[in-house]
Amino acid sequence: MGEVRVIEINENISAHNDAAADLVRKKLAEKGTFFINIMSAPGSGKTTLLTALINRLKDKINIVEMDVDIESSLDAQRVADATGVRSLQIHNGGLCHIDADMTYRALQEFDLDGADLLILENIGNLVCPAEFDTGAHKNIMLFSVPEGDDKPLKYPLMFTVSDIILITKMDTISYFNFNMEQAEKNIRALNPDAVILPVSAKTGEGMDALETMLLESLHQNH
Amino acid sequence: MGEVRVIEINENISAHNDAAADLVRKKLAEKGTFFINIMSAPGSGKTTLLTALINRLKDKINIVEMDVDIESSLDAQRVADATGVRSLQIHNGGLCHIDADMTYRALQEFDLDGADLLILENIGNLVCPAEFDTGAHKNIMLFSVPEGDDKPLKYPLMFTVSDIILITKMDTISYFNFNMEQAEKNIRALNPDAVILPVSAKTGEGMDALETMLLESLHQNH
Repeated sequence: MGEVRVIEINENISAHNDAAADLVRKKLAEKGTFFINIMSAPGSGKTTLLTALINRLKDKINIVEMDVDIESSLDAQRVADATGVRSLQIHNGGLCHIDADMTYRALQEFDLDGADLLILENIGNLVCPAEFDTGAHKNIMLFSVPEGDDKPLKYPLMFTVSDIILITKMDTISYFNFNMEQAEKNIRALNPDAVILPVSAKTGEGMDALETMLLESLHQNH
Repeated sequence: MGEVRVIEINENISAHNDAAADLVRKKLAEKGTFFINIMSAPGSGKTTLLTALINRLKDKINIVEMDVDIESSLDAQRVADATGVRSLQIHNGGLCHIDADMTYRALQEFDLDGADLLILENIGNLVCPAEFDTGAHKNIMLFSVPEGDDKPLKYPLMFTVSDIILITKMDTISYFNFNMEQAEKNIRALNPDAVILPVSAKTGEGMDALETMLLESLHQNH
């Protein structure tokens, strides 16, 4: 009988990513940096919310920011222009995610000395980014009102791996068929422990609570 | 010197997909069925628009519909309930796309005799579905007003491979910072030949034009 060699590609990729995520976490621990990974569908308001959040936090803590996009550099430029914090644009060459290895390589470009908070604005996608641990301490997802309250049923993994789920663009809720009770029920069925917070970068709704929550997480990390 | 075997995985996948897409097109040609592939970000209104469109067309032509989702069957059920047409739900097991091979396998489940129009509602994603020819005669993408006019710059391939780009949720344009001129300019830079059509399933804006355009394409296909 001939010898058959079997390789478990999925497990290898996953184990390799876990090892890289551990390297990211080790580097962050050395520097005392708290790392949040921001995920969402395209156009759910990541850059706008991050800009508002960073402007609230930047005089209290030292923040660095990374943006992943396929080939444009719009988001990092917008964040840098609107907030003045150090911002890095990562071009991932057409992939639908960023993994821990790519995150680790990107972190070589930053001097993290004194950085209290590292923010990653992931690529706009509800499928792929959920599959890769980036080494972040918290996964935060944005789920915008115009997308509709059924999205947890259709993209379950993203809602399962997120620690904080921000319902964004709350200022537009009267224009859409978005049932908050149904949305929460759909999320809770997948993720009973997630923090669910309705927010609007435009009106400021929920932004105090988000700021407090993040500062508490940073405090606990030290 | 030892023999080194080199396999070009990317090329093989692409060539295999092209061959499968040709099989899909051959089957459709035999049946006289016109095939449109509907792509967009999550929550841009694919199911709502398709339901409205099918209800306009179903007394004029024979329509079958397929929905791809990770694990839910909501969309096919909604379309079937709201329109009465034959609808098939495909679960793709967590992938971010459907390719020509999966499409061909799904088509084995349909009796296409007498079907004038086959509609595929692709998974909500602006990255992966753009990379795979499904065998469709036309790619139609939905780009919703709440997503923002910069999306072509961030997801260029999707806007490049689409023949018809529907700007959806036009009824909400006064609530969002969406500059139509800028959106068109961003699309035209990638795809000078795309048909760009603003629509609203809620108010009916653009739906007559979309219906006419589709019926003309079907007529040309025969």
